[in-house]
Amino acid sequence: MDELADTEKEFPDRVYEMQASLVHNVLMFIEVQNKEGMIEFLKDYHPADIADLFEQIKPTQRSALVELWGKEMDGEVFAEMDEGLSGDLLEKMPDDVVSEVLRDLETDDVVDLVEDLEKGEQNRVLEALEVGERIAVRNSLKYPEGTAGRLMARELVMAPTHWNVGQTIDHLRKSTNLPMQFYDVVVIDPMSKPIGKVPLSTLLRAQRSTALIDVVDEEFRTIPVGQSQEDVAYAFNQYNMVSAPVVDEENRLVGIITMDDAMEVLGDEADEDIKLLGGVGDESLTDTILATTRQRFPWLGFNLITSVLASIVIAQFSATIEAVVALAVLMPIVASMGGNAGTQTLTVAVRALATKDLTSANAWRVIRREALVGLLNGLIFAAIVGCIGYFWYGFPMLGVVLALAMVLNLMMAGLAGILVPLVLDRFNLDPALGSSALVTTVTDVVGFLAFLGFATVILF
Amino acid sequence: MDELADTEKEFPDRVYEMQASLVHNVLMFIEVQNKEGMIEFLKDYHPADIADLFEQIKPTQRSALVELWGKEMDGEVFAEMDEGLSGDLLEKMPDDVVSEVLRDLETDDVVDLVEDLEKGEQNRVLEALEVGERIAVRNSLKYPEGTAGRLMARELVMAPTHWNVGQTIDHLRKSTNLPMQFYDVVVIDPMSKPIGKVPLSTLLRAQRSTALIDVVDEEFRTIPVGQSQEDVAYAFNQYNMVSAPVVDEENRLVGIITMDDAMEVLGDEADEDIKLLGGVGDESLTDTILATTRQRFPWLGFNLITSVLASIVIAQFSATIEAVVALAVLMPIVASMGGNAGTQTLTVAVRALATKDLTSANAWRVIRREALVGLLNGLIFAAIVGCIGYFWYGFPMLGVVLALAMVLNLMMAGLAGILVPLVLDRFNLDPALGSSALVTTVTDVVGFLAFLGFATVILF
Repeated sequence: MDELADTEKEFPDRVYEMQASLVHNVLMFIEVQNKEGMIEFLKDYHPADIADLFEQIKPTQRSALVELWGKEMDGEVFAEMDEGLSGDLLEKMPDDVVSEVLRDLETDDVVDLVEDLEKGEQNRVLEALEVGERIAVRNSLKYPEGTAGRLMARELVMAPTHWNVGQTIDHLRKSTNLPMQFYDVVVIDPMSKPIGKVPLSTLLRAQRSTALIDVVDEEFRTIPVGQSQEDVAYAFNQYNMVSAPVVDEENRLVGIITMDDAMEVLGDEADEDIKLLGGVGDESLTDTILATTRQRFPWLGFNLITSVLASIVIAQFSATIEAVVALAVLMPIVASMGGNAGTQTLTVAVRALATKDLTSANAWRVIRREALVGLLNGLIFAAIVGCIGYFWYGFPMLGVVLALAMVLNLMMAGLAGILVPLVLDRFNLDPALGSSALVTTVTDVVGFLAFLGFATVILF
Repeated sequence: MDELADTEKEFPDRVYEMQASLVHNVLMFIEVQNKEGMIEFLKDYHPADIADLFEQIKPTQRSALVELWGKEMDGEVFAEMDEGLSGDLLEKMPDDVVSEVLRDLETDDVVDLVEDLEKGEQNRVLEALEVGERIAVRNSLKYPEGTAGRLMARELVMAPTHWNVGQTIDHLRKSTNLPMQFYDVVVIDPMSKPIGKVPLSTLLRAQRSTALIDVVDEEFRTIPVGQSQEDVAYAFNQYNMVSAPVVDEENRLVGIITMDDAMEVLGDEADEDIKLLGGVGDESLTDTILATTRQRFPWLGFNLITSVLASIVIAQFSATIEAVVALAVLMPIVASMGGNAGTQTLTVAVRALATKDLTSANAWRVIRREALVGLLNGLIFAAIVGCIGYFWYGFPMLGVVLALAMVLNLMMAGLAGILVPLVLDRFNLDPALGSSALVTTVTDVVGFLAFLGFATVILF
């Protein structure tokens, strides 16, 4: 508690950042076991903020909070939580509390919550649901993870082609099982095939007697139920869509995806790219120290192998280094510059692939471009490091060696930076996966090989 | 053209990826100067796809396309383009074409288009607009760039507190200047202060006689007009908002921000983080080779300074390296592992700051955590590289030196990886800006210093 009060003073207040008072007060309510006080207090906070609170406190405090809150807990809080964390908490909750807490969630949120649980625990949670909800969730789980089928909601707002605006509005007024929020009415033909969407704003502006078919927006896109969630998110972003009907193989309407779900996927995908490029998996701040250490180990292990490879290259030139120790001093410069230049190209390539700006139509042009950018910066930095090598050791040929190695390595860096992600993408792998390590392996090996190789040839 | 046909075969077809046939056909229409054919052909494509087409073809082809298309061009295409590119194209277009093309765009799109133009060109484009539009755009431009004021649309759908559902719907049916799409009606008091929102889905479900005040959703958030766009995007994502009213200092309604704008900002912000971490600025594939070379130069220049710094550290140990050349062979391993571990921590920290998961309430806990993860992985890899050093050169103390340096450097990597972004953030700088280079400077210097320092002390 003391520590908390301290850090609070040190950091300036930020918009939307969790107030330390939220954490402080909840921990206080737990300490004195004041259930009613806490429930009343938390009513003023959005479930997403309470989920963040869970992520910020210690594991023992999380359990204590769940226990004190009990059946009054808001299921939305679980839906907003990190998946690993919600799974851990659900596991410890008795069946009757699970059933009470998940009662108000929509199907797609429940699917999101249970899809990563292990089989036994998943069944236990599903058994706690009402039978209708359970069937709907099981149906969604039949679609592969990461597809539109998992993302879509099954609560639909649709109208047949022959209705007019008035009939549609009357129907909406009478319906009792509509989703909480919706933005369009999907117009379907007798075979359940969507033929267009009517945005609610259009419906409200039109006269009651207008035929739906006259105001329907036929320039709409349907999402195949098996489409990957990355592509769904891309489509929402590219075409500024608010909602899109999901169809099965026979083109029949089976569900609807709304922009909030797409926005979440878009954020997750960018997050994944950043983390893969940075050499970390899907970790979060709520992971334990041991879990984090274990997660990061393979990436570091892979880097160890590539750096030992670089060392083996250096070892071939031991005699050269022994003769001119300046080489040992200067050699990290070439490798380090190559690594940086390669990472630059790689970063641009990974993003361009994600936004589909880098395609088969311009791949060759971009490869040529990156090689040329590498060559140009290589020439500039060759001149600079050439001078450094010359003036530092007063030995002109050392500058020449540095300059030659620099040009070669920055060109190779550009090529590796663009080719590695393109090749991974061609094999349908994530272009960010392991590509940082692959590119720096190339630039390390080429950097040391070129520098020490040119040195051996030119200086002796 | 031949090259295009070639690459088309090499890459598998992807969903939503630009078809090579679109590029091919448009270039064909330009070649034969078939204006009508091209206009007819492009009607089937979304403006966002045509904008992508512009980004994929060569600069001369872009100008030719703009010239052939002329006044028939869809302004939306410009709104969807990379900002640098749309600016270049606008500059070359005669006034009458500009005025025709931008006529149908909404205010916020025009603002987005002209805000980065230089003053003279901006005035020329604004003069081409109709007077009402021009005033609205100039008003928006008064707000600082990157704030809610620039992001919001000024076309509002609002209703006074005393109306009922029927009156509101009748008002919407009669209004002529409503935005193309909207999702909520903002209910305001006589002082123009928003007191709640009625989602259209609620409006449609309610009976005509229901008072607006009875169905208004009072749990809504208003956005201050000066709020930064990052925070706006964060709020939309955190609270699953579809639209939010923007208010001025006196809490009066001045505009509205919708989710599609927030989604774009969210994507841009993640993109910016990735690029800053990768050591590139705001570059895109449409930049020329020279512009790209110039953009990347400062990042590489900064890296050169840090790697020369590392070389200076190594130079202090020239005598040691001359005596034991194995040190030169093994020294990159420690530095490279440190760089990787530091980048891992940095990546997690930058993302956690962006999602506001890393706050003043848990900063100390996370710093301790990263130091411990560094220590644990340091111990594991110390054992591994200790063995490598021992078996490679058959020299036990070399293994000990490697192991000690590894533990120290991985701990320092964890600390630098978390402290650098936290300190940048405290000074209100972007935590991703230059932090990669700073962290690897620390791990390079500490890596070489520890390894060669321990070697000097232990081996001699």
